[in-house]
Amino acid sequence: MATIRDVAKLAEVSVATVSRVLNRKGYVHADTVQRVNDAMKLLNYTPNDIARSLSKKSSKTIALFIPDITNPFFNELALAVEKTMQKYQYTTILCNTNDSPKLERQYIQSLKHKYIDGFIMASNTLSVEEIEQLQIPMVSVDRISSPAVPTVSSQNRKGARLAVEALLNQGCTKIAHFRGPKGLWIADERCQGYLDLVEELPWFTTKLIVDGNFQLKGAVEAANQLFDKYPDIDGVFAGNDLIAIGVLRAMQERSIHVPDQVQIIGYDGIPLTEMVYPELSTVLQPIYEMGELAAQILINKIEQEPLVATHHQLEVKLVQRGTTRHKH
Amino acid sequence: MATIRDVAKLAEVSVATVSRVLNRKGYVHADTVQRVNDAMKLLNYTPNDIARSLSKKSSKTIALFIPDITNPFFNELALAVEKTMQKYQYTTILCNTNDSPKLERQYIQSLKHKYIDGFIMASNTLSVEEIEQLQIPMVSVDRISSPAVPTVSSQNRKGARLAVEALLNQGCTKIAHFRGPKGLWIADERCQGYLDLVEELPWFTTKLIVDGNFQLKGAVEAANQLFDKYPDIDGVFAGNDLIAIGVLRAMQERSIHVPDQVQIIGYDGIPLTEMVYPELSTVLQPIYEMGELAAQILINKIEQEPLVATHHQLEVKLVQRGTTRHKH
Repeated sequence: MATIRDVAKLAEVSVATVSRVLNRKGYVHADTVQRVNDAMKLLNYTPNDIARSLSKKSSKTIALFIPDITNPFFNELALAVEKTMQKYQYTTILCNTNDSPKLERQYIQSLKHKYIDGFIMASNTLSVEEIEQLQIPMVSVDRISSPAVPTVSSQNRKGARLAVEALLNQGCTKIAHFRGPKGLWIADERCQGYLDLVEELPWFTTKLIVDGNFQLKGAVEAANQLFDKYPDIDGVFAGNDLIAIGVLRAMQERSIHVPDQVQIIGYDGIPLTEMVYPELSTVLQPIYEMGELAAQILINKIEQEPLVATHHQLEVKLVQRGTTRHKH
Repeated sequence: MATIRDVAKLAEVSVATVSRVLNRKGYVHADTVQRVNDAMKLLNYTPNDIARSLSKKSSKTIALFIPDITNPFFNELALAVEKTMQKYQYTTILCNTNDSPKLERQYIQSLKHKYIDGFIMASNTLSVEEIEQLQIPMVSVDRISSPAVPTVSSQNRKGARLAVEALLNQGCTKIAHFRGPKGLWIADERCQGYLDLVEELPWFTTKLIVDGNFQLKGAVEAANQLFDKYPDIDGVFAGNDLIAIGVLRAMQERSIHVPDQVQIIGYDGIPLTEMVYPELSTVLQPIYEMGELAAQILINKIEQEPLVATHHQLEVKLVQRGTTRHKH
């Protein structure tokens, strides 16, 4: 098999020059390019993977932006993206942004000079203009960015309705909602699903909606504060499973029986929901499928295959376990 | 402030040529280099960060390799590394290797052409030769790689001894150990710490040592199988917290009271240990400090400051909570 040295020798140029021709970079005379190309053809030379990818300014690497590495939802999503990308010989690097616009831009700055083939954004504070300027294939998960960027999410509002409906049907008369960050689309949608069902009910007050950041930290305390004020709450719909686990923990501290006195439903379906006791009832998102689909769409964008639909909302389902009084 | 355009104008060359001079790349005549450098000096021109880092083949980016993104220990470690690196204006990208040698090499291949300034390896299957060939600053966490690579870990064997000693002192007469992967240094050390104290005891049998992979998945089932065979086990030392939480879950399924009938101690001190009920007793590693220290050492290596010690073993401590019968 011919090497880059053989090509250089035959073309009577240096290896560095052959490399410059392959990489389409730096200064090379037109006739030298011709000589190098002829030599490559003659020797049937195929540059190795690295050289080839450099020549296309690509090295089969994509970046996945996540807002919170301590949330198992994103761990599961990352696993799905990584595995799918591996099937196509792509490597996935992870960027944990803490939902910080500054950090996100820092990552973008740092990565765009590294020939990243595409981005999957599960954390996104970029403006439409910034995204369009990037000119790198991109897919969003759970975030709406630009009309030009395909999105993968699940039926957040419907999922929330399923949860609250079940709580109402199973005897709850005062249901609190621990929501995620205001302005974050999925958090707003889930909150709206709760409001759809309870806003007209006589006991409803917006004080039963607790702001949060989707993190475990703080959820126990927030639950304690709310139950101090409203000890007659008998149902909780949490914006995600981490918050729900925090609420469950607070109930156990207060010796409030779950599900007899308070019923709790979370959102996401992370593996941890089956590890707490009682096991957590939750709205199950197809996390793995969401990651797989996002990866698949990105591959199609990178390899410029036609895209059919650009916005995908996957099905969710309510799974009732130990924290609700459902009929068996 | 002068821009690259001003420099190009004064030196009577194109912007691309100035860029080539800055990046020390491509073909530029020696006298052109001189002219560009003179122009830069005259205009007091400082290339911006990106240009400057490219010129040094660096972009202030480091990679952190972790073996299991679903293990909160590594999430916490990643947060510490990221925050410390940010202080020095470095960006951290994450590579989740699943402890797969193939994936690890794929990441290395993909990254070494991207001007990564350094690696922190909490997952490492590379050989000493491979590491030395890389010629990129590296620090290991919880792994022993090459004598040339500084290591940050905690006192695993001592920590295990602390846990098992407490179980013995608090009345346990038959203690099982759920260990991590064989051949993984930290798992071997923790197992050895257990053996140090129980190997000579009359009830001891190696069948009380259960192999595992440090993951939650499978821990419940493994615990059920062991307790089916040895229902008289009254103490469990788990190789990490995830396994301990799985064992706790199995006890709850079997209606075995923790800590009255079985006492459990985990290892790591992840935040989740305070979210399960009863809260998990555990051997606390200074996870955040470990990440901080690894990052600091890497910065020193990259910036070639002198290194004092190359192997750091941080202190651990036993924290007794709801899953052990300690005196208050």
